[in-house]
Amino acid sequence: MTPTITAFERSPDGGQGLARDTRVRWAFEEVGQPYNVRLVSFAAMKEPAHKAVHPFGQIPTYEEGDLVLFESGAIVFHIAERHEGLLPTEANARARAITWMFAALNTVEPPILDRATTWISERKEPWCEQRLRLVDDRIRSRLDDLSARLGNADWLDGEFSAGDLMMVSVLIRLRSSRILDEYPNLSAYVARGEGRPAYKRAFAAQLAINTGAPPA
Amino acid sequence: MTPTITAFERSPDGGQGLARDTRVRWAFEEVGQPYNVRLVSFAAMKEPAHKAVHPFGQIPTYEEGDLVLFESGAIVFHIAERHEGLLPTEANARARAITWMFAALNTVEPPILDRATTWISERKEPWCEQRLRLVDDRIRSRLDDLSARLGNADWLDGEFSAGDLMMVSVLIRLRSSRILDEYPNLSAYVARGEGRPAYKRAFAAQLAINTGAPPA
Repeated sequence: MTPTITAFERSPDGGQGLARDTRVRWAFEEVGQPYNVRLVSFAAMKEPAHKAVHPFGQIPTYEEGDLVLFESGAIVFHIAERHEGLLPTEANARARAITWMFAALNTVEPPILDRATTWISERKEPWCEQRLRLVDDRIRSRLDDLSARLGNADWLDGEFSAGDLMMVSVLIRLRSSRILDEYPNLSAYVARGEGRPAYKRAFAAQLAINTGAPPA
Repeated sequence: MTPTITAFERSPDGGQGLARDTRVRWAFEEVGQPYNVRLVSFAAMKEPAHKAVHPFGQIPTYEEGDLVLFESGAIVFHIAERHEGLLPTEANARARAITWMFAALNTVEPPILDRATTWISERKEPWCEQRLRLVDDRIRSRLDDLSARLGNADWLDGEFSAGDLMMVSVLIRLRSSRILDEYPNLSAYVARGEGRPAYKRAFAAQLAINTGAPPA
């Protein structure tokens, strides 16, 4: 049975690939599995029917027969566990790849999300500019460490994994800030991720919904 | 081989159990596995030797022979995958429990962490009080949804799982704010978690380090 995910009917980013369905699409494309997409409007996301699927009224969700999942991290992991290509088979390498998934979502993404939230929701507050500088320094503190660990490697731990998929997806959200430009190896890392054919297909598919253009 | 985790030599919370080693200790206690603890000072956490284990210079870490992990979410998952008691055996229920782990860490914890960061690092900024009110409303938005989903159930999805362990651990960080008092079913949920013998042993163990008292 082909799973069905949800995505924004109209993404707030206009198709820049920052919405979290892009991560899930990317995972499907890496493992070569087809998927269906059901689009949800902002109004419908907060209705009981959608909250029965996603308790926090967000996208993406994952439905496959009786199974209903939400949270992009959990969905990517679910795909990675069931299909070859996103997690190493060797037990220790697999555990380390999963560690990088959690690191992306719980250590690197929070200050990046804080930046976006401050930018969007506190734009008119008198503290916005000053606070953004504080948040940017917190982001740099994470990127300093991430850059040091990555060094000259292509990926965080051996072959490309779900950990890289998640970390690249998180770092892409920094593009408009230009902070990433301060870290050449991280910029190259993100470019390597975006250069993967699977990422390109995922990006094109979400863009097509937001522009009405057919996928590449 | 008994795994070794790291914890703060002196926790910033003075032993309230908010440091992330408590989650990992709780997981070990739930599955009945012994573990060793290596204490790390704030200064040592930022040294190359510790960053070789934890790239972001934090605690907890997990070392077992050749395997080195970091991120409390990844460590709890690693323990849950290898021992009975924290993840259902039925495949769909297992995937849903993992979903709640990610939801705790990536959807519920970020605004709670934002509150703590604002409180600690922006305490002297003129915007602190006003911004805390904004952040509190973001927290309430998450708790409204979580409370609605939990309803009258004891745990988020059937039996207690690693998803509940992580969600309770995240909600505990709200104690000082009193926001949790606005949600009787979530307060009772946290109390049920804290009432588990495994939690009590984990809490006592971290408290003993911070007070010098022997564990209960």
